[in-house]
Amino acid sequence: MIIVMKAGAAKQDRDEVLKRIRECGYQPHVIHGATRDVIGAVGDDRGKLVLQSIESMHGVESVVPILQPYKLASKEVKREPSVIKISEAVSIGGRELIVMAGPCSVESEKQIIESAEAVKAAGAQMLRGGAFKPRTSPYSFQGLEEEGLKLLAKARQLTGLPFVTEVVNPETAELVAEYADILQIGARNSQNFALLKKVGQLKRPVLLKRGMSMTIQEFLMSAEYIMSEGNQAVILCERGIRTFETATRNTLDLSAIPVLKEKTHLPVIADPSHGTGHYHYVAPMAYAAVAAGADGLIIEVHPDPEHASSDGPQSLKPAKFNLLMARLQLFAEAAERTL
Amino acid sequence: MIIVMKAGAAKQDRDEVLKRIRECGYQPHVIHGATRDVIGAVGDDRGKLVLQSIESMHGVESVVPILQPYKLASKEVKREPSVIKISEAVSIGGRELIVMAGPCSVESEKQIIESAEAVKAAGAQMLRGGAFKPRTSPYSFQGLEEEGLKLLAKARQLTGLPFVTEVVNPETAELVAEYADILQIGARNSQNFALLKKVGQLKRPVLLKRGMSMTIQEFLMSAEYIMSEGNQAVILCERGIRTFETATRNTLDLSAIPVLKEKTHLPVIADPSHGTGHYHYVAPMAYAAVAAGADGLIIEVHPDPEHASSDGPQSLKPAKFNLLMARLQLFAEAAERTL
Amino acid sequence: MIIVMKAGAAKQDRDEVLKRIRECGYQPHVIHGATRDVIGAVGDDRGKLVLQSIESMHGVESVVPILQPYKLASKEVKREPSVIKISEAVSIGGRELIVMAGPCSVESEKQIIESAEAVKAAGAQMLRGGAFKPRTSPYSFQGLEEEGLKLLAKARQLTGLPFVTEVVNPETAELVAEYADILQIGARNSQNFALLKKVGQLKRPVLLKRGMSMTIQEFLMSAEYIMSEGNQAVILCERGIRTFETATRNTLDLSAIPVLKEKTHLPVIADPSHGTGHYHYVAPMAYAAVAAGADGLIIEVHPDPEHASSDGPQSLKPAKFNLLMARLQLFAEAAERTL
Amino acid sequence: MIIVMKAGAAKQDRDEVLKRIRECGYQPHVIHGATRDVIGAVGDDRGKLVLQSIESMHGVESVVPILQPYKLASKEVKREPSVIKISEAVSIGGRELIVMAGPCSVESEKQIIESAEAVKAAGAQMLRGGAFKPRTSPYSFQGLEEEGLKLLAKARQLTGLPFVTEVVNPETAELVAEYADILQIGARNSQNFALLKKVGQLKRPVLLKRGMSMTIQEFLMSAEYIMSEGNQAVILCERGIRTFETATRNTLDLSAIPVLKEKTHLPVIADPSHGTGHYHYVAPMAYAAVAAGADGLIIEVHPDPEHASSDGPQSLKPAKFNLLMARLQLFAEAAERTL
Repeated sequence: MIIVMKAGAAKQDRDEVLKRIRECGYQPHVIHGATRDVIGAVGDDRGKLVLQSIESMHGVESVVPILQPYKLASKEVKREPSVIKISEAVSIGGRELIVMAGPCSVESEKQIIESAEAVKAAGAQMLRGGAFKPRTSPYSFQGLEEEGLKLLAKARQLTGLPFVTEVVNPETAELVAEYADILQIGARNSQNFALLKKVGQLKRPVLLKRGMSMTIQEFLMSAEYIMSEGNQAVILCERGIRTFETATRNTLDLSAIPVLKEKTHLPVIADPSHGTGHYHYVAPMAYAAVAAGADGLIIEVHPDPEHASSDGPQSLKPAKFNLLMARLQLFAEAAERTL
Repeated sequence: MIIVMKAGAAKQDRDEVLKRIRECGYQPHVIHGATRDVIGAVGDDRGKLVLQSIESMHGVESVVPILQPYKLASKEVKREPSVIKISEAVSIGGRELIVMAGPCSVESEKQIIESAEAVKAAGAQMLRGGAFKPRTSPYSFQGLEEEGLKLLAKARQLTGLPFVTEVVNPETAELVAEYADILQIGARNSQNFALLKKVGQLKRPVLLKRGMSMTIQEFLMSAEYIMSEGNQAVILCERGIRTFETATRNTLDLSAIPVLKEKTHLPVIADPSHGTGHYHYVAPMAYAAVAAGADGLIIEVHPDPEHASSDGPQSLKPAKFNLLMARLQLFAEAAERTL
Repeated sequence: MIIVMKAGAAKQDRDEVLKRIRECGYQPHVIHGATRDVIGAVGDDRGKLVLQSIESMHGVESVVPILQPYKLASKEVKREPSVIKISEAVSIGGRELIVMAGPCSVESEKQIIESAEAVKAAGAQMLRGGAFKPRTSPYSFQGLEEEGLKLLAKARQLTGLPFVTEVVNPETAELVAEYADILQIGARNSQNFALLKKVGQLKRPVLLKRGMSMTIQEFLMSAEYIMSEGNQAVILCERGIRTFETATRNTLDLSAIPVLKEKTHLPVIADPSHGTGHYHYVAPMAYAAVAAGADGLIIEVHPDPEHASSDGPQSLKPAKFNLLMARLQLFAEAAERTL
Repeated sequence: MIIVMKAGAAKQDRDEVLKRIRECGYQPHVIHGATRDVIGAVGDDRGKLVLQSIESMHGVESVVPILQPYKLASKEVKREPSVIKISEAVSIGGRELIVMAGPCSVESEKQIIESAEAVKAAGAQMLRGGAFKPRTSPYSFQGLEEEGLKLLAKARQLTGLPFVTEVVNPETAELVAEYADILQIGARNSQNFALLKKVGQLKRPVLLKRGMSMTIQEFLMSAEYIMSEGNQAVILCERGIRTFETATRNTLDLSAIPVLKEKTHLPVIADPSHGTGHYHYVAPMAYAAVAAGADGLIIEVHPDPEHASSDGPQSLKPAKFNLLMARLQLFAEAAERTL
């Protein structure tokens, strides 16, 4: 942590700061600058957030943190990439690109089984589908809940595809974990710390979506919440951030992929469906995500998007998804990946 | 809802859209433009989100919603402003400006009681303080939990000030409601729909903070979630949005106040402490919020911010808060408010 | 400037950095941390942007600037607020609040003279109006150009109000300066450095609008451009930044006012018309700007906004502007200002 | 254009709106909704911006534009992609991917010639380099100006590579056009309309960079400015937008590529150097841009980035650029492009 003193701050102010740094268990080092002093505080960083309060001391201009506040998620703790096993056949984070596909919401047995068969035929290794839905309107379809989980399990039984589904409430997290192969934390719950702690205590891999206005550092802090409770199987998912642009539903921040790959050992996938919000932009952004280094993709596919209960405009029909998977093969090879 | 067809869309595409609009229970009206057709869909708007899926139909360029998706929160349903009673002495939304003040976190009996006495002496009508804390780092102080609620209740008993405190988990919401006068939903939980539904079922007023990347329309949809469960006592709080600017911790969007006043009957307050993140900007932004039409303020005050467990840099010392309250009086009068 | 080395960087990498720091004329100071070294570089900061290139050296994690890159605009160079004289009667930055009002564009002699008389009657001290218009569409009204300047001068002659008008091109800057009392640099030209240098060479006060995605530091750097050419008479204008929110045309960042007041001696005004884009939000945001510490306001007033060539939706009719000025008086007093 | 009336607006208000629509030369069509009327205004859209002023009429809630405001840039006017010829050997917008590479600024004859030879050897078809530099600080290196243009021309003569360089002032635009093969408009000048008009009158292709807070619609409007002056040879360049994320210098919005490809016939390239700001993220984002459908790339390469006068941290050394070009070949093939 670096403490920048104001230009012309009194010696007494500086001494108070030095005293406070020592009280917090750090060792202060003063650099005398041309117009002001800068103080480095060296020591174990668990107390760092306490040091931030030095910013309210007299004569202090600013406090600049130097170290990253996450540990377990950091490459400094674990250099080699984490490969997370989902089922006998499926692991994420290795050489094989993993594609999870299916409808936004489970609507009926027919719909989810048709979807599962279609995405399997196209080459997807996992099924996605929502049973508990976090909708922005209380008047929108809220999901089939446990009935939806049972239908997803049935689709898995028929096709062999493991599935990912969202968990929205600590109270129902264990129920979801009885059925699902991966627990998804949605963008709107990405800083719902009660929920993060809860899934950190369960024995299921977690797919953590980036929040709409979450920095990459905060994203890794949310992963750290889960990991600090004991669950190391966290998959990060870039799904678009909120910006001023309205031509797309969100702005898919693909540069987050190489940044995350540099900072963390956790696998990173991308969601071009939520990232763009329009089915005709999904394929190019899926290719681009793989080119940028993603370990996988999660894509919305619906047999009849015009009648979907949610997210119709961003869902691909099976025929379009087939084409996407065929071309994706070429980009996977260019990226030295298998699919 | 307005459906904009592509320039040169086939008649058959248009007919399919008309058919689908009728299937959804709406009446279509076609306007033939110079280069394209535009179709208005008239009818009850509960099905609106289904209509959005028309965007995936052939020949459709875009679907433009016309009506607001919220109802109970809307001024179209209730013209006169809602005045929410907190205690015998305190109501929010009327002529009297309400100031809630106190520390970010309850740290000890001494700290919370000193704080309560100080803010009361300065003229605040309510106490604030966190017992369950949603911290971005799992290694930061997480709050005193029920012990903190008891200390807040003790401070209320001694000073007569009702208090607001945050609820972070549906599982502990009832516990918090046993103690608190107002339940706060923090910015990071502003689209935690499980939690919104839960506090909608409780009999306590709710202070709903705007999410960091939440539009005003989404903010009102989150209020609608609470109200649709039966709890009409919702107070909205502008606390800053996330932008590219880093000189302040967030960007306090004071224009949200007149916009909200135009669209909803619910009271609106502002949080200049989180909104700016630096104690020396709190007073001017508090005055500005009142000038913009806020019904109240929530302000962080700590007897010893340099040793605070959280949010030290944005907390005012009691002496500075005294000055703020004295000058606020003048702005309240200019705004035709009492304080 | 602080150079943060990577955890475990080689001694040789560090030595290369130290050498490079010395080559640039700085004195390096090493702080040995628990996991990495941090190096402070002390010296004259003119070379700072060269030091930034150290970020590309081996073993370096990041380079953190400590000092502000502006000088002339800084309070460290000049503590007391600058008061900028516009005419015998009008100065900006002193105790008197200055209100500039008038139409977006000069459209006709009748329109600008009616506007000038109306805003004078309501108490405004200056007239605003565009002769050269920077419009986002090449097919929109582009202004009356020199004819517009003549009409503004005529309105000044009749009413005694000095006027501010925009300059959009270095080639016509001198022409504008022959007529105008203040040269306005619009938001879209706020980093048009050729134009900034040009107005820096002229002998007219400059009203510099903040760019739509400009940080406060960049805003002060643009002021510095003008000042470094010899023109110290710069007035800063907060006019809204671009965010995700669409309920207002821009997000008026009123917290920029206290931040600027802390960092610079230059006067700061606010533009609630462009800041909100809707006439019914102009008055509350005008009051709020004054409460936040603004030295003045610039407001769009049009005798017939429904027929305006530009910016109709955000222009006030004279009657509404009268009311605004009457209530503004009260907020000015609360802010210890005269009007 | 769609005019949405307020719920319960008086019939007289609606009649005034209908009258005003007809005055503007449009044909109104009223749709009677359940709670409010919606009026479509049909006609030639040149007057559209005038209709926007209807928003200030009594009883009107909002005015929603339907048509895009650009024409010449639109695919509705020209369906087939534009291929822009730069030299005998180089065209942009066809099957061949074009890579422009070189240093941020021209610093010396040795530096620019070394750079040109290095990027040619790696397979780039064009050279980039700045002679007039728009720097955020007046104290930073401002470029070699005409001397720089001469050095670029010399590098072209030696290597055969045509070059792109920035134009920053209408007064020097013709001078730059005497030397350069492509005129670059930088992000900070993307709404400098005087400059856009000027380059629209010159006979040189223009590389138009997206502004930092520019929507895609505004981007196309700036292209329209150039085209409406007679110059149809406009190449669009996505170079990152400003968001809250600070891990990258900007957020490279690759989804802009498929969106632009859908809306315009103009070629689109990407700038991963400015888009990310760090050399180690340049290669993955270059691959991703090509996978997303870009027609080319512009990349900063410097023989000695640690001593560069500007943008060192985001410049690649020649060896790294070689590797990038080799791998890019694979992604180009997957995208059915030649390189």
